[in-house]
Formats: sequence, C-alpha cells, structure tokens
Amino acid sequence: MRLRNKPWANDKLAQYPQYVISSPENLKGKWNSVFDTEQPLHIEIGTGRGRFITGMAQANPHINYLGIELMPSVIVTALDRVIEAEVPNLKLLNANAADLTEFFAKGEVERVYLNFSDPWPKNRHEKRRLTYKTFLKQYEDILIDQGEIHFKTDNQGLFEYSLTSFSEYGLLLKWVSLDLHQSDFEGNIMTEYEEKFSQKGNRIYRSEVQYR
Amino acid sequence: MRLRNKPWANDKLAQYPQYVISSPENLKGKWNSVFDTEQPLHIEIGTGRGRFITGMAQANPHINYLGIELMPSVIVTALDRVIEAEVPNLKLLNANAADLTEFFAKGEVERVYLNFSDPWPKNRHEKRRLTYKTFLKQYEDILIDQGEIHFKTDNQGLFEYSLTSFSEYGLLLKWVSLDLHQSDFEGNIMTEYEEKFSQKGNRIYRSEVQYR
Repeated sequence: MRLRNKPWANDKLAQYPQYVISSPENLKGKWNSVFDTEQPLHIEIGTGRGRFITGMAQANPHINYLGIELMPSVIVTALDRVIEAEVPNLKLLNANAADLTEFFAKGEVERVYLNFSDPWPKNRHEKRRLTYKTFLKQYEDILIDQGEIHFKTDNQGLFEYSLTSFSEYGLLLKWVSLDLHQSDFEGNIMTEYEEKFSQKGNRIYRSEVQYR
Repeated sequence: MRLRNKPWANDKLAQYPQYVISSPENLKGKWNSVFDTEQPLHIEIGTGRGRFITGMAQANPHINYLGIELMPSVIVTALDRVIEAEVPNLKLLNANAADLTEFFAKGEVERVYLNFSDPWPKNRHEKRRLTYKTFLKQYEDILIDQGEIHFKTDNQGLFEYSLTSFSEYGLLLKWVSLDLHQSDFEGNIMTEYEEKFSQKGNRIYRSEVQYR
C-alpha cells in the first residue's frame, strides 16, 4: 500500500473516542463494555482502510467487530468509513497486534480475520507472517474453543505456506477456495486491495480454519 | 481418457507374468518376493498408460514401484513402456483398487501416489473420490507409520475437496503447490494427461500429506 504522510492522523483519531479505542490493555476481559450489545466479537488484524470490516459490521448487526491497524495514516481512512456507517457494532484500534494477549482474555474473541496480510516472502522473515505458528498460538490464546480464522490473500506463496502452517499446528481446514471470485461463496466483502488486484486478473485464495 | 476397445489386451497382459501381477491376494504380506531387491514399495492408484510410474522407477532404482490400473485396454499401454524400460523395480497390477487391504498387509507400502484421479464432481459421488475418508482409511491400513500420499491434479474442485478431506482425517499437509509447473519442485515426472492439460494453460496442483 502506498502511504502518504498524514501528520494530523493521530489528532483526528483522538477526536473520535466513541469509535477509536485507546488503552486497549485496560479492556482485557471487558470488551463487551465497549459495545452497545453483548454479542460475539470478531476482529480483523490489519484492517487497512476499513472497507471489509465496515461492510461486515453493516451486514452482520449481531456481531461486534474490531478492526486493528498499526498505521495511523491508514486507519484514519477507516475512521471516515466508520463515521459514515454509523453502526454501533464497529470499533477501531490503532495498535500493534504483536501481542494480542495483552488486549484480550482467553475466549473473548470468536473469530479472527486476516485479509491480504503482508506475505513476507523471504524465508528469513517467516516469523513475521501472520500465519506463523507463534501467531496461531496467540489467536488460540484469545479465541473461544473451536474459534476460527478466516483468511484471504492473492499471494500464492503466502497461501501455500499458510495451509501447511495451519496443518502443522493441528487446525482443521473447514473450507478452502483457490479462486474465490469464481466460487459459489456468497456474501464476500472485498477489501480495497482485493478489488484492485482481482480486476488485474489475480486469483483470490480463501480459507476457513478452526481450532480443535 | 478416450478409450479404444482392445479385445486382445487381457491376452497380452497374461503373456508377461514377469511384469504383470496376477493373484495379488496371494501376495499379501509378501510383496518383496515379487521384486529382485527388498526395498520400500510405492504404489500408484490409477496408473493409466504408465508414464509416471515408469519414469519414477527409472529415476529411483532403490524404490520398488507398483502401478495399479483397472482397465486392461489402458494398462496394456503401460505394459509396453515397462517392457521397454526393462527395470527390475517396476510391476503392474490390473485390478480394482476398491479394497487395497485384500492385497497388502499393514506397513507393506511406504507411499501412495494419486495422479489426476477422477474428480467425481457431483456431491452425490463424493464417496467415489480417491481422497474420500474411506479411501484414506484404506491407505492408512496398508501404509507404514507416517506413510505418505502424494497427490496431483489439474482439477481445482477435487484439489480443494481433498485438502479439506485430508485435514478432517487428521493428515499433516507437508508440502503444497498451487501451480506446480511454476514452482521450485524438482524432478517432476509428468503423466500423459498432465502434459496435455498443462500445455493448454491449466494449473497443476500438488500436495504431499503424511499420516500422524
């Protein structure tokens, strides 16, 4: 993603405490208090400009959504979408998701979404991939029993790697598509990136895995 | 595969008992006696015209190979290749592989190859797919501990199905390629079908899974 420097981004994020979570470590075990309704929580790691998470929150009012994104200059665009959507079941978190157990208690999250995560193609960067075993352990530590990861990418190498990493970790592959946009999957909500790259003819890969 | 009727096929197969196994049920537990050398046995289910298994036997003299094919009119072409190759580590079996435990004892086979198996795309034919759970159970019943299945296909639906079926059965996905001919996999031996369909631009999918 090409980034523009937005020195005002942090200020803007701070102006919308009703949408943008501060001090997430104080919410560990209490995320339901953040939302109007006590209902399952789904999180997206690397929410980017927020098109996916906003679309999901609009389509699924009985789920609470949290979009986590490290870069202020990116999540500030997601904030614009959230302001416009005006839905009570959607919040943003501008934070590094390197240790999710600081923010969430065991069982507090029902599902993790990973969309078009950085592929880190070099072998020596394997540990940075969000489907590396240490991340799978983190997700396990915050998910409910039999919680799920829903993952899509256009990066063939990352998808191949992730399938083997999921398997090695013992996850159940419940559903897989090797060409999402030609599949019978209904209700796909595209990310900005997904729309751009699928228009170029790139295949989109998608999987659902479950802890067992 | 388009088939020509070859009424003479059965006669020809019977003329080469040194290459074509008869009475496999009598060999259960004794397959090593069939080959010159006692060494691991790899089998291909649906060997077709035999290009893959012959190439593998030539490339890997320290493995014994058995190609199993139901149709006499097809395996008779494989026999021509085997006669020409003149290698001691390759045999053919003209039989229905519907119950492999009739032919092999537990631990007698080190690896199973499935290449371009019939996709049986209709849901109601799921049980006929060679990666359906009942077949995975059969392979387990004849394989060594931590034995492997190596599987390739150009059929996207069958590959997706098989990945989930392997996972559900608890197999470890050790290796996967979603575009074999563009991957760094070395030593690929193409089947007749593979050459034809990859030339048309079809992707070849390949996986290695292991019992655990």
